Amino acid sequence: MAISSNILSLRNTIEDTLANLSFPQDPKGLYEPIKYILGLGGKRTRPLLTLLSTQLFNSNYNDAIKTAIALEVFHNFTLMHDDIMDNAPLRRGAETVHVRWDLNTAILSGDVMLVKAYDLLAENKIDCLPDVLKVFNDVAAKVCEGQQFDIDFSGDMNVAIDDYLKMIEFKTAVLIGASFQLGAIIGGAIKEDTRNIYEFGKNIGIAFQLQDDVLDVYGSPEKVGKQVGGDIIESKMTFLFLKALDLSDKTKKTRLTELFTAKEIDEDKKVVEVLSIYNDIGILKSCNEKINMYYNKAFEYMDRISVSKESKSEIIDFVYSLKIRDM
Amino acid sequence: MAISSNILSLRNTIEDTLANLSFPQDPKGLYEPIKYILGLGGKRTRPLLTLLSTQLFNSNYNDAIKTAIALEVFHNFTLMHDDIMDNAPLRRGAETVHVRWDLNTAILSGDVMLVKAYDLLAENKIDCLPDVLKVFNDVAAKVCEGQQFDIDFSGDMNVAIDDYLKMIEFKTAVLIGASFQLGAIIGGAIKEDTRNIYEFGKNIGIAFQLQDDVLDVYGSPEKVGKQVGGDIIESKMTFLFLKALDLSDKTKKTRLTELFTAKEIDEDKKVVEVLSIYNDIGILKSCNEKINMYYNKAFEYMDRISVSKESKSEIIDFVYSLKIRDM
Repeated sequence: MAISSNILSLRNTIEDTLANLSFPQDPKGLYEPIKYILGLGGKRTRPLLTLLSTQLFNSNYNDAIKTAIALEVFHNFTLMHDDIMDNAPLRRGAETVHVRWDLNTAILSGDVMLVKAYDLLAENKIDCLPDVLKVFNDVAAKVCEGQQFDIDFSGDMNVAIDDYLKMIEFKTAVLIGASFQLGAIIGGAIKEDTRNIYEFGKNIGIAFQLQDDVLDVYGSPEKVGKQVGGDIIESKMTFLFLKALDLSDKTKKTRLTELFTAKEIDEDKKVVEVLSIYNDIGILKSCNEKINMYYNKAFEYMDRISVSKESKSEIIDFVYSLKIRDM
Repeated sequence: MAISSNILSLRNTIEDTLANLSFPQDPKGLYEPIKYILGLGGKRTRPLLTLLSTQLFNSNYNDAIKTAIALEVFHNFTLMHDDIMDNAPLRRGAETVHVRWDLNTAILSGDVMLVKAYDLLAENKIDCLPDVLKVFNDVAAKVCEGQQFDIDFSGDMNVAIDDYLKMIEFKTAVLIGASFQLGAIIGGAIKEDTRNIYEFGKNIGIAFQLQDDVLDVYGSPEKVGKQVGGDIIESKMTFLFLKALDLSDKTKKTRLTELFTAKEIDEDKKVVEVLSIYNDIGILKSCNEKINMYYNKAFEYMDRISVSKESKSEIIDFVYSLKIRDM
């Protein structure tokens, strides 16, 4: 699907504003990593969602630009700190900050990015500032909680599916919801619409994340952009795996657990055997049902928003064009 | 000096509010370390300064309590992350968070503390919220910058004295200034007074930090609360050392540098010899002159504040009663 000229123009605005973000000259060790991570690219999805959401309610999106950028800065702050916690060597194909510089730099530069995000939010007009802060604070805390749940769940085969869904909701989806919601608040939407668009974004965010889990196993290598079955090889707790455990009989459950805890195992054989169990129990169908449930829920909330169908079409088209790997 | 009943009562209010801060039940791994570090005690100096400052301009300090607590939460966030960077095993005699839990916990719990600080600030009334955020954001970024300068300067004998003074200003003193300033803003002080009390606090903060450097070398062991000469043993860059280098002739300068870079050296002999050079060049006098300069500057700003002398006396008395180790 072709990207609309409006979206291309919003992206340019976002890139220009990011490139012109001013940071003190010194200390270099604090501010260079920030420029570095913000310069690694990405699709700038969150700020784009904010501006599209403002446009849905108000033709003038200028008032929302600083907040849109705050969301991108916040998102990159979480990436900088998450990369430490995940021991990740690469981010968007480039060295992560804690590798290129060091641990202390990645901690401290991340901290000051979070302050910078608030600094950008504080530029909002007085009439929406309290609401903006309330939404942002709530979501920022949830994102940290989601990361903590993710750490807690690592390697735990007994995670309840609902807890897993809550984890991805907090870690990923609420920030998508808030990106829309903040744009709506700044655009002057009525309270109900700001809540509806939050729920729209949140449910889309969960659907995307589940789709990502599915693509990792069932996507074509070109689409996945990394080795198919990577999550299986790493014994990652995903919706697929937890749902598979749930749907398996005792024999299959035991075997799945063995495969995911085996210390020495041939990677290819592991993928093939897990995949065969997944296929036997029809995991793809279960997943797609769940994903569609979230999509449907999202669009129910979108339906409730009190603007014309035509003006909603750009956001809806854009959301369909997105895949989680772009976020 | 006896602490006034007003101060005792403000401290109780602070302790009660801190103890009643509400955090989600889960994830425990995220919120227990926050309750832990906030429960380690401390004199709660920053929130106390905020409340005293509000009282200076307004008999009702209730509106300032949340902001006072935000400053304490922020301060403890910086301690949690600094302890990682400094590899510190102990904080107030108890295990640091990254030791008692782990690195990831200390990073993530710290992050959510910073969010919590903003959450408390956001409860300010709309008429002072933008000013409160502006002051806080500016100071929070400076505190991070100060920590980065401190890391950058570690082991660097060529640090200019002015750069060192800027480092302690940013790392420690501006938060003391902001603690006063935020209280004044919330208390409804005129703009000029809010700036004057910030400068008062900032200059007091620098004086305290310099006094701390001096006490480490010239204090009695009971007063210092740790081994006298600890900074010398650790070859820490302090105002004393940098000023001593500045005042030394070539021979003494070379010897000081040798003593501070020697890999294997008897600790006691090192302290004795450095102390002898310090005494030869009269470092104590130089330091006291500098400290008095900052005290005098601070009280010049206090003089300019447009309230009666009598109402200023409680803050002045309290500040005299403080030593940096209490902060």
